Amino acid sequence: MADEEQKYWVGFDLGGTKMMAEVFDEEFKILARERKKTKAHEGAEAGLERIAALIHEALDEADVGLDRLAGIGCGVPGPLDIDKGVLLDLPNLGWQDVRLKKALEDEFACPVAVANDVDAGTYGEYRYGAGKGARSVLGVFPGTGIGGGFVYDGKILRGKRHSCLEIGHCQVVSDGALCGCGRRGCLETVASRLAVSAAAAAAAHRGDAPHLLESTGMDISSIKSGALADAIAAGDTVIEQIVRDAARWLGIGIANAVNLLAPDIVVLGGGLVEAMPLLFLEAAGDAAHSRVMPSFETMFEVRVAELGDDATALGAAAWACDSIKKTD
Amino acid sequence: MADEEQKYWVGFDLGGTKMMAEVFDEEFKILARERKKTKAHEGAEAGLERIAALIHEALDEADVGLDRLAGIGCGVPGPLDIDKGVLLDLPNLGWQDVRLKKALEDEFACPVAVANDVDAGTYGEYRYGAGKGARSVLGVFPGTGIGGGFVYDGKILRGKRHSCLEIGHCQVVSDGALCGCGRRGCLETVASRLAVSAAAAAAAHRGDAPHLLESTGMDISSIKSGALADAIAAGDTVIEQIVRDAARWLGIGIANAVNLLAPDIVVLGGGLVEAMPLLFLEAAGDAAHSRVMPSFETMFEVRVAELGDDATALGAAAWACDSIKKTD
Repeated sequence: MADEEQKYWVGFDLGGTKMMAEVFDEEFKILARERKKTKAHEGAEAGLERIAALIHEALDEADVGLDRLAGIGCGVPGPLDIDKGVLLDLPNLGWQDVRLKKALEDEFACPVAVANDVDAGTYGEYRYGAGKGARSVLGVFPGTGIGGGFVYDGKILRGKRHSCLEIGHCQVVSDGALCGCGRRGCLETVASRLAVSAAAAAAAHRGDAPHLLESTGMDISSIKSGALADAIAAGDTVIEQIVRDAARWLGIGIANAVNLLAPDIVVLGGGLVEAMPLLFLEAAGDAAHSRVMPSFETMFEVRVAELGDDATALGAAAWACDSIKKTD
Repeated sequence: MADEEQKYWVGFDLGGTKMMAEVFDEEFKILARERKKTKAHEGAEAGLERIAALIHEALDEADVGLDRLAGIGCGVPGPLDIDKGVLLDLPNLGWQDVRLKKALEDEFACPVAVANDVDAGTYGEYRYGAGKGARSVLGVFPGTGIGGGFVYDGKILRGKRHSCLEIGHCQVVSDGALCGCGRRGCLETVASRLAVSAAAAAAAHRGDAPHLLESTGMDISSIKSGALADAIAAGDTVIEQIVRDAARWLGIGIANAVNLLAPDIVVLGGGLVEAMPLLFLEAAGDAAHSRVMPSFETMFEVRVAELGDDATALGAAAWACDSIKKTD
């Protein structure tokens, strides 16, 4: 039962296949969590209605009336116009120019902040997770691609209108493989889940990964992070080597970012890291420390994310709260 | 003649071989500029005395009494403790743990800010040079090494105690050549003046750069930026190719930094760029734009620095003024 004296915040996490709305009190304790499929194929207009309906459901579940709603923070896959809260082009969803901020402000009559989902997740870890108390936090989230975020002096680092920290598209292999972005040798070509799955499928095809072959076959859309972890646990040593190589590349990408940003804490999250936290902490952490400029070696720490699936919604809500208060 | 109503600022640029003190009015118009040799071999204590004496000389030249001195900003080669204003270890000068901030505060009884020289130079370009009016400016200064600085929302990006933006030590060549820092494949190994001079000396030795061979010989300490520019102008096409390759690598390093930081303006300065501004603007600019993530391609502009030798002293003085006012 919600306290009548309090104000409440909503955090929203918009994903390609599912979305989630969470309600928080002023201490950012969670009161409700509701999930729905995104059903992106129904189009952006239907999507906006589903988003609003899910937020209403979560508020209802938490017993929070609209008069006690202080604001909404949304974490969305990029690219977006941060200030206007417009989702410019979501290839995974097939949506374009979606005025999310305006739609939610009209529906809920409260301030709305829209952030890149990885930025929001990094901000969540900075405020309430593995980066709590640090002055600056670099978040690195290897999944299908590799997202990054940087919180510095309490703010999310950003471009003029758009988000930044595109660590997945920094070049780590000179004249390397073609990336989905059209350039060559990007970190994503060697350290994303997609890169790992492709190498793992080839190993399975060669007969070098019998457990993986038996559990998933060679379709890389089936070779998810959990399947890779299971194959390693079952004894597919080649798969372990492939994942360690990817983690080492990730560490090199992190080292370059640390040379530029000098974060206190690097937080590793995303599907691959959640499935194999110790392997990534060790292999990526070692590579980062042994590649970074020697005088920076002891100045940062690599940690595994603590907030899991809640990071983006919690971070978006906290960012909405902190950024709206600051501009009051 | 100094205006009696005004306050004045001193900017100081400490280099390995020479140092410079400049006096500015409140609009940061320059009133005096004095230079001296650093004579680092005489030790840090004598060095501090020479620094103070040079500032006194510049104030005297500008007719500014100590009672009208608002503050001093110093740009120094790193590494340093920014808050304490202590130069930790200057290998070029052979000085260690020099309490510059305290020494100048005691001598001049005014606030003193100490910044990394490249950070100060970038701040100078942001306030009064090629980055004027931009929200964020990335400065890249290829010289003997390659320095970087980033000004974001009016502040110099920094680590907890130390400066950051070590773009020269980001890896651009996988398993590349050994760098002075002890790592491999750093940007400095392919794009610094030292890397270019070494390749140029080898070309001269092979007989591929007759003009350079005639003008400087094969001693790389003689192959300065001006000599490289002269050799290119005289027709040493191999030297031009070597410099263009270096500029292209520089552009790749810049692209990685742009992917992370999304600056509005990238300012190129330093000895190589000053000697061959158009070549660097074209070759590094093209490489940066064609390597950065495609959606960032039109979001930044590469420009040549405008302040030349004054950038560090002017930037340090302006930074002292802006940062001291902010913390008042």
